[in-house]
Amino acid sequence: MAKYADALDDVFVALADPTRREVIRRLGSGPASVGELAHPFPITLPSFMKHVRTLESSGLIRTAKSGRVRTCTLNHERLALLDGWLAEQRRLWEAPTDRLDHLVVHQQETL
Amino acid sequence: MAKYADALDDVFVALADPTRREVIRRLGSGPASVGELAHPFPITLPSFMKHVRTLESSGLIRTAKSGRVRTCTLNHERLALLDGWLAEQRRLWEAPTDRLDHLVVHQQETL
Repeated sequence: MAKYADALDDVFVALADPTRREVIRRLGSGPASVGELAHPFPITLPSFMKHVRTLESSGLIRTAKSGRVRTCTLNHERLALLDGWLAEQRRLWEAPTDRLDHLVVHQQETL
Repeated sequence: MAKYADALDDVFVALADPTRREVIRRLGSGPASVGELAHPFPITLPSFMKHVRTLESSGLIRTAKSGRVRTCTLNHERLALLDGWLAEQRRLWEAPTDRLDHLVVHQQETL
């Protein structure tokens, strides 16, 4: 459970930045080299590499080096962690017992 | 667009903490006072209030004070921002043109 919480922490931190979200968006349409990914951003390559490392350590992307080229790939499963968390929240607030609780509270308030 | 990006930054930062995620989970079943929310956590009330403020400034929760009691309510719409972002990513990687691109790359690789 602690591991799941830590993984979620890392994923949320990684996505709390527009450059990193843009990288994830771009990788959605297929793998790309660090050079291709960095190209649209007005930052230095070392600064961009920090973003790549944050994404990699969160597990959202995987990277592999072949010669001089490092290729990044989206790890859909890690992004699915977020889907799972959101689905869990939705289940909670859509649960019939909760709706009943709300009704009771509402009725108490209107009495 | 910058406003949307900023809002997403704040939401992701707010959710990058297990205490704050637990508060969101709890509020999924209805509004609660800060006292009720703080109860399960082995931290001081001032520390807990920092989490409440981070959640409030991200827009994920709303708070209202009545007498001595501050009540927190989940703002589902702000959480839906995350749903929207995730759905956007899914659309990208499930787009037929992207599947075609992958196919072309794959065929080139196997030639």
